[in-house]
Amino acid sequence: METLIIKGNIISAAEFGELEITENGYLIAENGKIKGIYQELPREYEESKVEDYGDALVMQSFADMHLHAPQYPMLGMGMDMPLLEWLNTYTFPTEACFKDQDFARRAYHRLARELAAKGTTRVCMFSSIHREATLILMEELENAGITGYVGKVNMDRNGGVNYQETTEESISETVKWLERCNFEHIKPMITPRFTPSCSNELMQELGRIAKEKNLPIQSHLSENTGELDMVKKLHPDCAQYWETYQKYGLWNDRTLMAHCVWSDDRERKAIKDAGVWAVHCAASNENLVSGYAPVRVMVNEGVNVVLGSDIAGGDHLSMFKNITAAIRASKARRILDDWKTEFLSVEEAFYLGTSAAAPFFGEKPGFAPGNALHALVLEDFSLPSVRPLSVRERFGRAIYRREHGGIRAVYSEGKKIFSK
Amino acid sequence: METLIIKGNIISAAEFGELEITENGYLIAENGKIKGIYQELPREYEESKVEDYGDALVMQSFADMHLHAPQYPMLGMGMDMPLLEWLNTYTFPTEACFKDQDFARRAYHRLARELAAKGTTRVCMFSSIHREATLILMEELENAGITGYVGKVNMDRNGGVNYQETTEESISETVKWLERCNFEHIKPMITPRFTPSCSNELMQELGRIAKEKNLPIQSHLSENTGELDMVKKLHPDCAQYWETYQKYGLWNDRTLMAHCVWSDDRERKAIKDAGVWAVHCAASNENLVSGYAPVRVMVNEGVNVVLGSDIAGGDHLSMFKNITAAIRASKARRILDDWKTEFLSVEEAFYLGTSAAAPFFGEKPGFAPGNALHALVLEDFSLPSVRPLSVRERFGRAIYRREHGGIRAVYSEGKKIFSK
Repeated sequence: METLIIKGNIISAAEFGELEITENGYLIAENGKIKGIYQELPREYEESKVEDYGDALVMQSFADMHLHAPQYPMLGMGMDMPLLEWLNTYTFPTEACFKDQDFARRAYHRLARELAAKGTTRVCMFSSIHREATLILMEELENAGITGYVGKVNMDRNGGVNYQETTEESISETVKWLERCNFEHIKPMITPRFTPSCSNELMQELGRIAKEKNLPIQSHLSENTGELDMVKKLHPDCAQYWETYQKYGLWNDRTLMAHCVWSDDRERKAIKDAGVWAVHCAASNENLVSGYAPVRVMVNEGVNVVLGSDIAGGDHLSMFKNITAAIRASKARRILDDWKTEFLSVEEAFYLGTSAAAPFFGEKPGFAPGNALHALVLEDFSLPSVRPLSVRERFGRAIYRREHGGIRAVYSEGKKIFSK
Repeated sequence: METLIIKGNIISAAEFGELEITENGYLIAENGKIKGIYQELPREYEESKVEDYGDALVMQSFADMHLHAPQYPMLGMGMDMPLLEWLNTYTFPTEACFKDQDFARRAYHRLARELAAKGTTRVCMFSSIHREATLILMEELENAGITGYVGKVNMDRNGGVNYQETTEESISETVKWLERCNFEHIKPMITPRFTPSCSNELMQELGRIAKEKNLPIQSHLSENTGELDMVKKLHPDCAQYWETYQKYGLWNDRTLMAHCVWSDDRERKAIKDAGVWAVHCAASNENLVSGYAPVRVMVNEGVNVVLGSDIAGGDHLSMFKNITAAIRASKARRILDDWKTEFLSVEEAFYLGTSAAAPFFGEKPGFAPGNALHALVLEDFSLPSVRPLSVRERFGRAIYRREHGGIRAVYSEGKKIFSK
């Protein structure tokens, strides 16, 4: 039995909008699974080693539920362009370079380490179309202690120069890739890029594979109005975008759909009824002027909403920054909605970036007993303060701003994967 | 004659939306004033020492034209509150603590050093109501090499507990403060907090002092709809908010007005006609859900628009972050305007954060000959890249994201005030 005891100010998002705070408490895990949070160290652990972080904040680490690994080298570039132009000018040419396995190894090694250092311990990630680079990505994530899912991207139409597969290649490469996915913590996910990139034949086959192998699915939905028009032309038989996925068996309670910016009442109902996961990527939507997803409305309607950095549409990997981006976007949405919808509180946005994703991984929100331990330890600020701050106040500020090197340690599946 | 020669990729915002880039060039200053930018080192300087930054970016440093120094300790706090509640809960109690001169010294010493380290070399800044703390702030800025203006805040109504002056105190303290302002690079500025905080008598007297001593003026205008209602009640004789300043001689071409979020056609015309400066504080407006200032429209109409971090409504001092916030806000504005207004490009927003403020300080945009040298040197990224990037591409990315420690040096008035 391997015991891990972390001491500090323990903070978790047990419910949407509700923090559970245990000041100077003990977070205990056995064999990587959480046993509980304790105000006093239980007698049975009196002899055990305690990792004592003093007055630091010990909080849940993050789940980044939508990001594009091969766009990592172009972070922060082309931010003046709308989605479809940006894809052709920057995105496809950059992703095409991941045919080069040495380059992929270098970029992905760094990406995986940076995720760990920033406290992202769970991901659902798009790779490129390349089988070998996708396996390299999975291996690098596994080695860095990151957990979750990765998908080899499928796209057999509307790609860029040197960046498109034939339908047959796309399917056969996917099958070969799946045969070689033997990682402990990183699993495969079926990943049609989005409807404009995938022929009907390819979509059909991907739906079949997902069903046969019982795999989760990720793609994009209703990000941008130009995209909606394109999908409408490609699928005149479908009343709405989501139906292009549903038609081919790619629409169920293990499907992640990034964006959902323009999902109206009917589409949101389809998302909710199927148990599909809406991945809100606020920073990306801001950068590419896609719009502001109706997050508050989706949450109220009972849609599963989680967060994604969506790099490189998003310009930062740090989920702290993506959480504040979600708050900001909800404030813009409030103004667009004529002050009728509430913005996200810090507690609520933190929940979306952590606990909201737990059920996707078969777990409960917060530091619930039985969950795998995913946590980070944060030192806060040395700014002069006019009075002692509560742990809640320190937490709120830490979400908005941290000093360089503030993250002292990150734990994933009960293992320390980063320390300063 | 003191000569400074900086070598690197020289980037400046010579015109709104136009960068001037000299790759591997020389930026030369004599006695703190820019001589010129040269592709080859002029023969007369062949014997001079060159500060060679290799392939780094050498760009204009920033002007932060609106920020509240005594709100520095509360950065990132209370971001879930609307303006007026936030003022009473966090702002006024925090500012009140600057009665304590030791505390003021500690906080302002750190603030001044942080400004320098982040590449902000020019400021127009609100202090608190306290004379001594305001002098301490000016001294700390001067010592850190920051230049610009600071104002002791005046407020004789609607303040907080222990944070308000009588009209007489406010005036006499202002006079005493002005008598002691003898700093080389930090000058005083008349600073009525905003109309709701200042009685008519106080406003009148401040207008008189500004005129008599030929001082610039800073205040707030049309930030928030609740504030507009309040001003309307206090000044039933004024058709619009700006007239409450104009009435008392506080409205001219050396007046800075922060926010202007809700300034309509008529108010914007009054701003333009008087040559008043509109300080756009995008991050603060986002955080406090104030709204989105019509920046593009103001610029098109010929209003002087500059940028402010507005800490602690804004959550970051770094003007890099406030420049991207301005871009983001202009994108939100585009959506609010039904896609009819253009968002700010990176070049345009960089201009607003640098060159746009130059005429306020009696200078020309960009690295114009005769300007005082205000510059920063930035190393960019070690991210693997799929191809060599142009200096313009590197600049665009650097505005969005920098690595910790990326700023290698900062120069203000020709002196190196920060180096790594």
